[in-house]
Amino acid sequence: MSILDPSSSADGQRGPVEHGIRDQIVDAAEAHFSRYGYGKTTVADLAKAIGFSKAYIYKFFDSKQAIGQAICVQCLDKVLAAGETGVAEGKTASDKLRRFFNGITSKSAELFFQDKLLYDIAAHSAEERWPSVIAYLARAEAILRGIILLGRETGEFERKTPIDEICEAILLVMQSFMNPLMLKHNLDDLPEAPTKAVNLVLRSLAP
Amino acid sequence: MSILDPSSSADGQRGPVEHGIRDQIVDAAEAHFSRYGYGKTTVADLAKAIGFSKAYIYKFFDSKQAIGQAICVQCLDKVLAAGETGVAEGKTASDKLRRFFNGITSKSAELFFQDKLLYDIAAHSAEERWPSVIAYLARAEAILRGIILLGRETGEFERKTPIDEICEAILLVMQSFMNPLMLKHNLDDLPEAPTKAVNLVLRSLAP
Repeated sequence: MSILDPSSSADGQRGPVEHGIRDQIVDAAEAHFSRYGYGKTTVADLAKAIGFSKAYIYKFFDSKQAIGQAICVQCLDKVLAAGETGVAEGKTASDKLRRFFNGITSKSAELFFQDKLLYDIAAHSAEERWPSVIAYLARAEAILRGIILLGRETGEFERKTPIDEICEAILLVMQSFMNPLMLKHNLDDLPEAPTKAVNLVLRSLAP
Repeated sequence: MSILDPSSSADGQRGPVEHGIRDQIVDAAEAHFSRYGYGKTTVADLAKAIGFSKAYIYKFFDSKQAIGQAICVQCLDKVLAAGETGVAEGKTASDKLRRFFNGITSKSAELFFQDKLLYDIAAHSAEERWPSVIAYLARAEAILRGIILLGRETGEFERKTPIDEICEAILLVMQSFMNPLMLKHNLDDLPEAPTKAVNLVLRSLAP
């Protein structure tokens, strides 16, 4: 496997050297985007700023979006990790559900809005439904499903409504606090507003 | 009362002539905004396009925002009227709730997104929380409260949760379909997504 083989990065089979260069590009891109914005930057600008040739960057990333996605994935991993920490800390299914959304919302607000750059990338990713966002939502739904199943087992939650319908509806009503394009308009009402929404969700789950 | 007295428009005590001119300005502004956008237009542009002097327009409206608000009020009245028609048609409280949100969502999508102009004004009004939007939300909440109270009377809905908490939470979880800034990102999922959200809301109201 050559370090110059672009196909090697697609399946993740990269050696430590390539990992190092990829990370270096991602870090430099993050710094560059944070100063000039994601939307306005081209790969040529980026190459110039980093001091690599454009062709060399293309060996590691197909496009600017691929670099944005790498930053986006790192971010969404942190958001989900905050949600998962909440789930682990919660004692009951209801408590896990509260802490899951609290973790996600507060980490999203922190990552996407304290740093203008990351909002810029998050907005592009949400608007254009990047694969990183689709994967994030699928993982969030899987965690949510685990909480609902637990609550059904313990008798905390009702068992009549199909679980697919429940998970989809909860993500729909919570999207105003999860999707950065919508969360943007709710920042003044954190953390009270999502807490009230979760209370409504919990009432909808009552047996 | 003089036609040139700007205070006369503030309290609505205007004669038929003033009404006519106000309406003429609003209609002309709507046509102008729809071509050039609300954000980019100044009162001077508008005056030039309509053929009135800027000073004459200021006799009827304090600012561009006041003209935007007049257009916004007309729009939001239509949205609420669609919601109220739904409420009138519904047979049970649950049915009224469904039809209320269905009326609001479909009329909002129609008014704000078929016509780029109106989205532009709706976005400004929502972003800046214009009085017209605050009034709209207060009226929507009053209608919602009426539906909840009816459902409590008929035994369709639970009576434990404080009604203020219920109304606030329902508007919070439905905002992604009511607020044009958020509805924008849900247009592909109409009318299914809001229907699923309303189903969750109805489960939360179950006795």
